[in-house]
Amino acid sequence: MRAVDLIVRKRDGGTFTPEEINFLVGGFTRGDIPDYQFAALLMAIVLKGMDPEETAMLTRAMIRSGEVLDLSGIPGPLVDKHSTGGVGDKISLVLAPLAAACGLRVPMMSGRSLGHTGGTLDKLESIPGYRTDLSHERFRRGLEEVGFAMIGQSEAVVPADRRMYALRDVTGTVESISLITASIMSKKFAEGADALVFDVKCGAGAFMKSRDQARALARSLVATGAGLGRRVAALITDMDQPLGRAIGNFLEVQESIDCLRGKGPADEVDLTCRLAGWMLSLGGTCANPDTGERLARDKLADGSAWELFLRNVEFQGGDVECVLQPAKGPRARIVKPLKAREGGIVTRIDAYKAGAASVILGAGRSRKEDVVLPGVGLTLLKGPGDAVTRGEEVCLVHGDDETKVAEAMSVLDSAYEIGEEGKAVTQRVLEEIA
Amino acid sequence: MRAVDLIVRKRDGGTFTPEEINFLVGGFTRGDIPDYQFAALLMAIVLKGMDPEETAMLTRAMIRSGEVLDLSGIPGPLVDKHSTGGVGDKISLVLAPLAAACGLRVPMMSGRSLGHTGGTLDKLESIPGYRTDLSHERFRRGLEEVGFAMIGQSEAVVPADRRMYALRDVTGTVESISLITASIMSKKFAEGADALVFDVKCGAGAFMKSRDQARALARSLVATGAGLGRRVAALITDMDQPLGRAIGNFLEVQESIDCLRGKGPADEVDLTCRLAGWMLSLGGTCANPDTGERLARDKLADGSAWELFLRNVEFQGGDVECVLQPAKGPRARIVKPLKAREGGIVTRIDAYKAGAASVILGAGRSRKEDVVLPGVGLTLLKGPGDAVTRGEEVCLVHGDDETKVAEAMSVLDSAYEIGEEGKAVTQRVLEEIA
Repeated sequence: MRAVDLIVRKRDGGTFTPEEINFLVGGFTRGDIPDYQFAALLMAIVLKGMDPEETAMLTRAMIRSGEVLDLSGIPGPLVDKHSTGGVGDKISLVLAPLAAACGLRVPMMSGRSLGHTGGTLDKLESIPGYRTDLSHERFRRGLEEVGFAMIGQSEAVVPADRRMYALRDVTGTVESISLITASIMSKKFAEGADALVFDVKCGAGAFMKSRDQARALARSLVATGAGLGRRVAALITDMDQPLGRAIGNFLEVQESIDCLRGKGPADEVDLTCRLAGWMLSLGGTCANPDTGERLARDKLADGSAWELFLRNVEFQGGDVECVLQPAKGPRARIVKPLKAREGGIVTRIDAYKAGAASVILGAGRSRKEDVVLPGVGLTLLKGPGDAVTRGEEVCLVHGDDETKVAEAMSVLDSAYEIGEEGKAVTQRVLEEIA
Repeated sequence: MRAVDLIVRKRDGGTFTPEEINFLVGGFTRGDIPDYQFAALLMAIVLKGMDPEETAMLTRAMIRSGEVLDLSGIPGPLVDKHSTGGVGDKISLVLAPLAAACGLRVPMMSGRSLGHTGGTLDKLESIPGYRTDLSHERFRRGLEEVGFAMIGQSEAVVPADRRMYALRDVTGTVESISLITASIMSKKFAEGADALVFDVKCGAGAFMKSRDQARALARSLVATGAGLGRRVAALITDMDQPLGRAIGNFLEVQESIDCLRGKGPADEVDLTCRLAGWMLSLGGTCANPDTGERLARDKLADGSAWELFLRNVEFQGGDVECVLQPAKGPRARIVKPLKAREGGIVTRIDAYKAGAASVILGAGRSRKEDVVLPGVGLTLLKGPGDAVTRGEEVCLVHGDDETKVAEAMSVLDSAYEIGEEGKAVTQRVLEEIA
């Protein structure tokens, strides 16, 4: 088998056998196939595509490139959720304890902030003392004792994905539904989940801007899951405007606590319960997503999810006091209000711009090596559908640096669209694919 | 300017400005742009194409990457021919002295055998003593004193092409009309010609198997020539069956001598004179290719091309005796006849298989480092349209090694197609594009 012959095959629109995909992924990961050959192959894949079977095989080959978490023996069902990333998306913080409270085990492996979007690990680590670098043994224990545990991806899991992503990033080959699918799926299934629900974000604040792109990815994830013999569902959800009212690490922890204590923003609570419903349905705990959603609403209301959240914070070394009394948590040095430049109705808050403003403040990273600040971010006082008078405060900007606060305010000002009509985002779920 | 942004642009079907192409080619040649980025770019170019303007700019950028032969001061017109490579294609050996005899100066830069096709340099060097590694100064003098000179491509000319070709070869990105065009054109114009005639071979023995491919390349060469402000024409010619009756280095020199002395095979003489006609027309010596062709036939008949050939052999250090009496030239150790396996009419000789048989004998290279043998090859005793009886000799196989002769005979046997009807190839020119 020669790499160049396989590159030519894909270039001409052909397909690969499982053996050929193993040869390519294994060879690249070991360094036998040089970067330049793999780069040409990646471009051919971007432009000619891979069918669902090939994508499943690619996912499998990538999983095989490294360690797989062994969660056998833990009484299941083990179900996780993955979001493609959004602005103000703190769903995981509420969903993991909620699903666990409903009887699932949630082995949640999350990422860090990327581009204009936040990262679950950064949010959790804004709780003083909270550790996400658990050993496998401790991760297992968290699942057994608390019902869920939150970790980052270790270097040993799916090394092929790390190598491939680094090359894709510099060769213009990121934008491929098949490659994105395999990257997401390989990491998720290497963590040991039996079933998975995907939250495919769509709109200005998401990586997939159009409904067509989001639908293509959602379908690819579901088809590839089927090809791997796993239970997978994908919800396409609206990320044109920020989710909830808080953006920024500890600000989002606070809003998550509000959710868990029954005081969360409706759009966020609804989406969280719907995702939990799907997790329960795929896990076999409930007959369908609707009954699952009802169970989730009960467990949110009766405080059992909140209790599990507190147990998890304690288990992962976080300061429980600071969660019970968020006022004691990290705070930004400066808090400035953004005022409405005109009167009217808020018609839209551009999620991309809001995300960009929060990155400027230090809530996210423009480069991998940037340090994330726990207390900075945005509190959206006014949302779509709210009436504002000229000069009224629409948003609080939390920052540690005057210059950056000023810069963020100017970006944010253009994010707020004020007109004559507008309404609140009441329905985040656009489509459900299973 | 960032390479990755340009890769994305081409991936999405966009076009490049001249500055961007210079940045890419210059950066790659200097080593600033790594192989993996250039490989992804090449694949995007293969799959999305380049327009004629971009191809012309790419050619110009490649020419600029190295030395350009300075032939200023040599009384023109300087006109060359380039063939895309075929089996038994010894046209250059006759055409160069013929065009010079008609009043052109022919600065001919040729290549070596590649794959199943022969190379002009290997053929010339089968004449004992003949040198193709002339200095620029000596090359100029040859043009001035003899009217033509034959050299190989030096390392200093178009280094970008050498680097690009090495990468294309291992990344499945050879097959691009634009990249092939720029590769050919850059080398040809770096040698200093004012005008160029291309012989685009088409059929089993050519790199372009189909008429559509050949036409696409021919049109691209002509359009790119126009974009560079040069006079260019392209003839699409039939290479489904070997040209002439001899295949192999010194065997082809002998057949070229036959042509120059008025005893060449009709298909070869006709094509050579037609190409000369186009060279004379582009060079402005004759009003059109038809009058050019007539002049060429005269100069072939009156012995003036033959005389220039002899002067060139002497000028480039070759053994003139051995050209005057080819029986004194290099000979293979073994000569075996291939016999017809059945009676009938020769319907076709597969040029690819005939070429492959001659490479087995050592007339060409399967790998770059292979040594080429001067005396080996094939003499086609019977050609298409000839009647044969069972067991009659159809071809002589000249080789130095019994095993290889046997192997070549078996390949050759399948090259000869014998049936009920067949006719000689009388018209090699399929299309003329200018």
